[in-house]
Amino acid sequence: MPVAQKRFTLYDLEGRTRPWSPHAFIVRMILNYKGVPYETIYISFPDIRPTIQKLDPNHEQYTIPFLVDHYKRVTVVDSVEIAGYLEAQCPMTPSVLPGGIQPLCSFWYKDFLHPKVLVPMLKLLLAPVCNGVLDHRGAEYWRRTREKRFGMRLEEMAGTEERWTQLWETIDPELQRIGRALRSNKHCYLLGSTPSYPDFSFCAALAWAQVADERLFKKILAAHPAIWQLWQKLSIYTGGP
Amino acid sequence: MPVAQKRFTLYDLEGRTRPWSPHAFIVRMILNYKGVPYETIYISFPDIRPTIQKLDPNHEQYTIPFLVDHYKRVTVVDSVEIAGYLEAQCPMTPSVLPGGIQPLCSFWYKDFLHPKVLVPMLKLLLAPVCNGVLDHRGAEYWRRTREKRFGMRLEEMAGTEERWTQLWETIDPELQRIGRALRSNKHCYLLGSTPSYPDFSFCAALAWAQVADERLFKKILAAHPAIWQLWQKLSIYTGGP
Repeated sequence: MPVAQKRFTLYDLEGRTRPWSPHAFIVRMILNYKGVPYETIYISFPDIRPTIQKLDPNHEQYTIPFLVDHYKRVTVVDSVEIAGYLEAQCPMTPSVLPGGIQPLCSFWYKDFLHPKVLVPMLKLLLAPVCNGVLDHRGAEYWRRTREKRFGMRLEEMAGTEERWTQLWETIDPELQRIGRALRSNKHCYLLGSTPSYPDFSFCAALAWAQVADERLFKKILAAHPAIWQLWQKLSIYTGGP
Repeated sequence: MPVAQKRFTLYDLEGRTRPWSPHAFIVRMILNYKGVPYETIYISFPDIRPTIQKLDPNHEQYTIPFLVDHYKRVTVVDSVEIAGYLEAQCPMTPSVLPGGIQPLCSFWYKDFLHPKVLVPMLKLLLAPVCNGVLDHRGAEYWRRTREKRFGMRLEEMAGTEERWTQLWETIDPELQRIGRALRSNKHCYLLGSTPSYPDFSFCAALAWAQVADERLFKKILAAHPAIWQLWQKLSIYTGGP
């Protein structure tokens, strides 16, 4: 192992704009907030599976983000799992899972944030991500797999103003719930007096929109004043390497 | 106010067996765990709306549980809201919302526990609750409103072994998720080293099944060893007054 190598490597998704992946943004923001040294390796969609298989043949989940801990020779997938791993390995850094909320964060992500915010956002961003964000190979892969999954051309999903608005209207009530939850806490976090996994995971969705579609990004920011306030505090953690 | 009156009154649902309501069980278990003195008034389904309108004309949510604080002359609905109210009013009692998890508990309840556990349980319990648990007026109301909502006779919903099993099979994976979350914590709670709102709200569903359908109750208890373990610890809090 070269001396200069950082302890952690974050595997993120390649794109013409970097970084852009909402799932990897969660881990990136948490690494930045914790001040943990890491480097990023960007890989294109078709390379996810072979890359993970090569790094750790025992893994069966081929998803980004993927974190490698070079000291422990451990690989971890899934943003909640990675957050939990970093809590245990870097106990002197600020916690993003205070009071043992890791299991509750799995429910937050799988039953709320993913189905009710990220999936409708994905529908709005299908074409913008393909045509404006991804690298050439990633765009080809994205178009083929997503057009098959949704049974239509990417451009059809949110291609008319009416369809765009319909999709937006499924997201807005959920943003209001997030806004009210933030507003109910004088610190304007989803939990306690410091930012934690739920805040970072939501802001990662905002960071994704910022890269992929200015209109959607501005609509989300304007949906509730508390969302704007949270983004002002946490957007500093969205940067590279 | 008579001198002997308790500070809090919990409005719960009338039945031939008392108590039985899953939503009221959450608050009852929390009151018992906190050791807060309270009395219960049981009201029949058709009386919920007029009772709440009389107690507090400003309320627009006509649901059980409903908590009255006689000292503060305040009425609170919704189990998460009531838990938050009790935390603020009884700060010397053990917390069920440690570290400011109240907003996260709303998501846990509304996006996970209610749609993925309570609603399929309700479908299994539609007929048993009507025919075995409710008082006469409540049963008439339940049959009329629930048959309209589901578009079938109560007895049809889970009336065949096949249908019962189909519904059970939608609950079981969610119970496995709860079991794994409990198992990931050495204290066997969903969060931290003491029971909190997520634990009580899930055990309230178990308490409901115990009253309404022995078969379902035993199936849930047997679904995962950690669920059995949690129930051993928290079932003591399901009692009256």
